[in-house]
Amino acid sequence: MAKITPLSGFPEWLPGERIVEQHVVDTVRSVFELHGFASIETRSVEPLDQLLRKGETDKEIYVLRRLQAESDDSDSGLGLHFDLTVPFARYVLENAGKLDFPFRRYQIQKAWRGERPQEGRYREFLQADIDIVGRDTLPFHYEVEAPLVIAEALSRLPIPQVQIKLNNRKVPEGFYRGLGVEDTTTVLRAVDKLAKIGPAGVTKELAAAGCDDKMAAQCLALAEISASDGSFVDKVRALGVSHPELNEGLEELLRVVDAAAEHAPGLFVVDLSVARGLDYYTGTVYETTLLGHESIGSICSGGRYDALASDGTTSYPGVGLSLGITRLLGRIFGQGLLRASRSVPTCVLVALPDEDSRPTCTRVAAVLRSRGIPTEVAPEPAKYGKQIRFAERRGIPFVWFPQADGTHEVKDIRSGDQSPAQPEEWSPPATDLHPQVE
Amino acid sequence: MAKITPLSGFPEWLPGERIVEQHVVDTVRSVFELHGFASIETRSVEPLDQLLRKGETDKEIYVLRRLQAESDDSDSGLGLHFDLTVPFARYVLENAGKLDFPFRRYQIQKAWRGERPQEGRYREFLQADIDIVGRDTLPFHYEVEAPLVIAEALSRLPIPQVQIKLNNRKVPEGFYRGLGVEDTTTVLRAVDKLAKIGPAGVTKELAAAGCDDKMAAQCLALAEISASDGSFVDKVRALGVSHPELNEGLEELLRVVDAAAEHAPGLFVVDLSVARGLDYYTGTVYETTLLGHESIGSICSGGRYDALASDGTTSYPGVGLSLGITRLLGRIFGQGLLRASRSVPTCVLVALPDEDSRPTCTRVAAVLRSRGIPTEVAPEPAKYGKQIRFAERRGIPFVWFPQADGTHEVKDIRSGDQSPAQPEEWSPPATDLHPQVE
Repeated sequence: MAKITPLSGFPEWLPGERIVEQHVVDTVRSVFELHGFASIETRSVEPLDQLLRKGETDKEIYVLRRLQAESDDSDSGLGLHFDLTVPFARYVLENAGKLDFPFRRYQIQKAWRGERPQEGRYREFLQADIDIVGRDTLPFHYEVEAPLVIAEALSRLPIPQVQIKLNNRKVPEGFYRGLGVEDTTTVLRAVDKLAKIGPAGVTKELAAAGCDDKMAAQCLALAEISASDGSFVDKVRALGVSHPELNEGLEELLRVVDAAAEHAPGLFVVDLSVARGLDYYTGTVYETTLLGHESIGSICSGGRYDALASDGTTSYPGVGLSLGITRLLGRIFGQGLLRASRSVPTCVLVALPDEDSRPTCTRVAAVLRSRGIPTEVAPEPAKYGKQIRFAERRGIPFVWFPQADGTHEVKDIRSGDQSPAQPEEWSPPATDLHPQVE
Repeated sequence: MAKITPLSGFPEWLPGERIVEQHVVDTVRSVFELHGFASIETRSVEPLDQLLRKGETDKEIYVLRRLQAESDDSDSGLGLHFDLTVPFARYVLENAGKLDFPFRRYQIQKAWRGERPQEGRYREFLQADIDIVGRDTLPFHYEVEAPLVIAEALSRLPIPQVQIKLNNRKVPEGFYRGLGVEDTTTVLRAVDKLAKIGPAGVTKELAAAGCDDKMAAQCLALAEISASDGSFVDKVRALGVSHPELNEGLEELLRVVDAAAEHAPGLFVVDLSVARGLDYYTGTVYETTLLGHESIGSICSGGRYDALASDGTTSYPGVGLSLGITRLLGRIFGQGLLRASRSVPTCVLVALPDEDSRPTCTRVAAVLRSRGIPTEVAPEPAKYGKQIRFAERRGIPFVWFPQADGTHEVKDIRSGDQSPAQPEEWSPPATDLHPQVE
């Protein structure tokens, strides 16, 4: 067999790391379900014309071909999805007649991008998305609710502190219009480069878009506003620009901030430099920073969109956020921030006195399992010291010893304490039943 | 947007069906973990040379190409995995130094095959695999244990009755050798076609392989033996063939049948016509029939293999089974055999008297959720009849009514019973808390 080497950009976890990943997935799933989001999974492939609708990602798509395909292969127009939003929009259109709206769904699946791998950027990665989609209309209050669901999920994860940054596309758009700008998209795109090219670079781009120095300074001043409470409104007003869309955006943003202060204090901050995907967002937008780990980029982003899914007569406006589980865990594992208390689910190893006792030991294990205690039987009747080391290497906390007289003893191999026990009655401490994430 | 049509062979479930799928996945996962199997996930892609090692599946592989790839694209040698066994073997070799053996793992992931879709055969499908892999050696008793784990998982699923068919590769191989056959693989391959080409066809193929009529009749007689207990041994002996490998195979098969009779009575049957993947199995082999639904093929297959993974100096023998979740569910949904009691996780809908009450209703919902009760707030302050119909359409059993005086009432919309309740105290019946699979 050829030498086996990892593939760059296609991360795989060891069993102990996988336990952490499962804990993250189980946690976000349970929060999403508590909030009434239904699970769906979409197929991994979409027709290329669907995948290319957003325009800017064509370089990143993996196209499929059957190895022995004829030239007119029916699969030739398929690619792996690069996010969960495009497939979800297609799923909504395809099943609109069978879904009830507003439709709340979560989706936890892999996605693929053929990008150059680097920290925080993978070729295969796990995403957890929530979206709420309406038919024709979607009330604003879902823009308040969606980030609170994500905030609750994040707050239950054993990860470094996060900060969810908020903006509303109506704020810069209304502000630019109030300044007299017509091509607001070009201005937004220029301001979005602030971190990359600096204020001088942005001013130059804005000049090319027809903004004089004063207008450019105003645009930059807006992008510099941030606040953890409603004070951003006065800061924007102080810039002296007025426009109905700006007012609407400020009012909406304030409602999100007020609800956030009640339900998730300290987690949200208004940051008017946040632009997010220039194309399809139309209201509130979200970005999430893992504090102290800003270099990996946003771990959870999204926003309100009015026209991502439409069949020509009906549109399906929505709001959603996407949590990058692989990006988050890649950093956490890379820095050794979290680990599982053991590498296996097993709580009890039943020691094997001799091979003839295997049926007895198997019965003990079956009784423990029937009571919800993960149990395995030792692989071979080695010396007990060796069987204990077998448990120790995997972090299995308890070894069970069937005695010759039909009684039983169980040893906590961390403390060395050994005591009589009955398989029908004994229970481990709750914190030992399943692996803990530490 | 172009007309949206489903892709043949890439099934997607509606939210209610997805609840059934999640129930199946959660159930098998919990059984696997009770038996100490650790979860892993492997990347979706493997180098083509890995995927082609088994030889016969080259037509089925999906190869990846980046849409904008240069001619010497580094990804050009990658394909989607067509099962979970090949990637697992590679994972074991790649991480051998970091794993403890015997290594028990389960893996629940999608796989892809570019086959012509038909009932029971998909281009994208979900598999749930368990394997136990040793380093250099793997004791026989794992061939007894692995199918019992699967039997326990299957017996907890709300599906039609199954039958797990057993054979042991040493039985036909030893039998053929005892008959004087040298090329046992060719004979096994011919007998494996029995159902397809009938006894006359097999006899003809066996003649070409050098078997005279008497030998061919013996080979066919062996394949016709089946039994739900140890009586198969006498039936084989009655054919008058003797060989050490045959004896070993019969003895091993008997041990599996005896253990099965104790731990999973009625679920297993010896069927000496079962051959399974001609290449790599070396001991016990398993196939599972969904009774009454034989046409979809085996829903769970596997066996003992001695040399699937080897790095030249060390080999990793194993035993495992693979449960075809999509094949199983495709049939179950196609025939309407199972459904979820509702299409959403939501147990309680908090009705909205007017939009100004949204913060109050959101607080009620937060209290219910903090007590583990999946809750959502109504989308708009419509007439109560309309809000109740919103719940009804989704199967949400309870609607919560905040009263003007600060008290609360909750209605079971199936019975119409409405009574006072406190969000800090009220609980639904346990069977209503989460959707049930019926």
